[in-house]
Amino acid sequence: MTMRDRARSTVEALQDAICAALENIDGTGKFREELWTRPGGGGGRTRVLSEGSVFEKGGVNTAAVHGPVPSALEGELLGEGPDFYATGVSLVLHPRNPHVPTVHANYRYIERGDTCWFGGGADLTPYVLYEEDARHFHKTQKDVCDAHDPAFYPRFKQWCDRYFRNHHRGEARGVGGIFFDTVRPDEQHSMEDLFTWWKATGQSFIPAYLPIAERRMSESYDDRLREWQLQRRGRYVEFNLIHDRGTAFGLKTDGRIESIFMSLPPLVRWDYSVKAEPGSPEANLIDVLVSPREWA
Amino acid sequence: MTMRDRARSTVEALQDAICAALENIDGTGKFREELWTRPGGGGGRTRVLSEGSVFEKGGVNTAAVHGPVPSALEGELLGEGPDFYATGVSLVLHPRNPHVPTVHANYRYIERGDTCWFGGGADLTPYVLYEEDARHFHKTQKDVCDAHDPAFYPRFKQWCDRYFRNHHRGEARGVGGIFFDTVRPDEQHSMEDLFTWWKATGQSFIPAYLPIAERRMSESYDDRLREWQLQRRGRYVEFNLIHDRGTAFGLKTDGRIESIFMSLPPLVRWDYSVKAEPGSPEANLIDVLVSPREWA
Repeated sequence: MTMRDRARSTVEALQDAICAALENIDGTGKFREELWTRPGGGGGRTRVLSEGSVFEKGGVNTAAVHGPVPSALEGELLGEGPDFYATGVSLVLHPRNPHVPTVHANYRYIERGDTCWFGGGADLTPYVLYEEDARHFHKTQKDVCDAHDPAFYPRFKQWCDRYFRNHHRGEARGVGGIFFDTVRPDEQHSMEDLFTWWKATGQSFIPAYLPIAERRMSESYDDRLREWQLQRRGRYVEFNLIHDRGTAFGLKTDGRIESIFMSLPPLVRWDYSVKAEPGSPEANLIDVLVSPREWA
Repeated sequence: MTMRDRARSTVEALQDAICAALENIDGTGKFREELWTRPGGGGGRTRVLSEGSVFEKGGVNTAAVHGPVPSALEGELLGEGPDFYATGVSLVLHPRNPHVPTVHANYRYIERGDTCWFGGGADLTPYVLYEEDARHFHKTQKDVCDAHDPAFYPRFKQWCDRYFRNHHRGEARGVGGIFFDTVRPDEQHSMEDLFTWWKATGQSFIPAYLPIAERRMSESYDDRLREWQLQRRGRYVEFNLIHDRGTAFGLKTDGRIESIFMSLPPLVRWDYSVKAEPGSPEANLIDVLVSPREWA
């Protein structure tokens, strides 16, 4: 089996496992599947859940696309050669209960000419800061990285903090996690080693996130906290539409709009000049977003 | 009085007149004012109305800023020289009732070295298409343009259609209006003529928009139409965060975030793959957004 095929079957198996686990904890929400094909080559499997009990909106998408390198990406893709191949799974979950954090994850494999690389990671966006949740989420991913190379977690944790930042607000999108891109074989890491680690990282999503959702999903909340969540979801939209390279990549390559924008929250508020009260739980969260912390 | 001062007092008088007219038709909503200063030079007067009876959210802002040309704008500003001056009024109104269209307007005057120019316009974003409203809005602005130069309206109407377009959706943001930039004196138009026309254009905002708001604000609507409005407001956010040069200008020049984002709607939905039913009023609106029409 080629690396392309192994990567593709890895992301499709991840999609199946993650959707099954999410439907299981949601209880009522079911994913709706849409298959699509890309005019330039390849296609994808979009799965969206709407108005579940736990998840107000969630998308877990896979794609495997190939063909000539789109001109808008000529300078952005590593390697040389006229054609590319990319496969990956991408997910965003927007829970209803503000005590349950929003989460994003993505695991991808890309080839151009003789050059191939892995990218991915998962990051957490809480509306109420539970330090034990942030620690658990980071620790689960750190363990997988450490088993492969102790240098990985510190590097990819920092990369995540730098990348998922609303620079115009001076705030991180959330409490981070790991983010990596263009991870290629070198003297210390064979392609086989990297594949094993990348696959394990993808498989760590369920144990990293689901226990957090399970322990927060039954907590009660009032209208004020719900409103705070809707306002903070506005920051999520700002990041995705202003800063996110994945969104820009999708729009530049004439990607499928509905699949790209499944990441946007179902309901969002923008009010003028909302400020957290000093000393409140909301202000406590903002402190951590302004100055990212070590969690593992 | 210098042109700077005349332009500035024009935009400030417009702000006063527009806020008074809006409070008058709203009945309960009042604008809240915040003054701010820009570290590089100048400042502004932000006025925001929240949770009014007619207007769910509205902002009518003025600014007069000056100083060294920010490096991010070096190539984007006409003229030569190290310093610039800009003054303008900018407004966005998000009505509660989906029968009342959202509206945006902006009137600005900019100088750099010996070069100075006017920009501005107003465009309408309905959630339900009333052709007579679109015609009234265009006609009012066309009359002001025609009195000055019959070539202006056709040119600025087309510019508006081209500019306020969600290219990634293949849709206009709304039914348009007029949009113009870098309007400078030439053999046919003295600076004085242009100032007179620009001021009249700004003064046409109230008669162009308010009669529409007044005749639609008491129409009844159901939850389904409200939901359609919230979804369409998502398109407004997409335009402002992905395509709008004014937003990009503000973010690049370290503008005041809260003033820039006052344009974002108060409450917004993104649902997966919402499609208008063929033959419905919603589909009728989309047809006009996909292929802009002549209205005056």
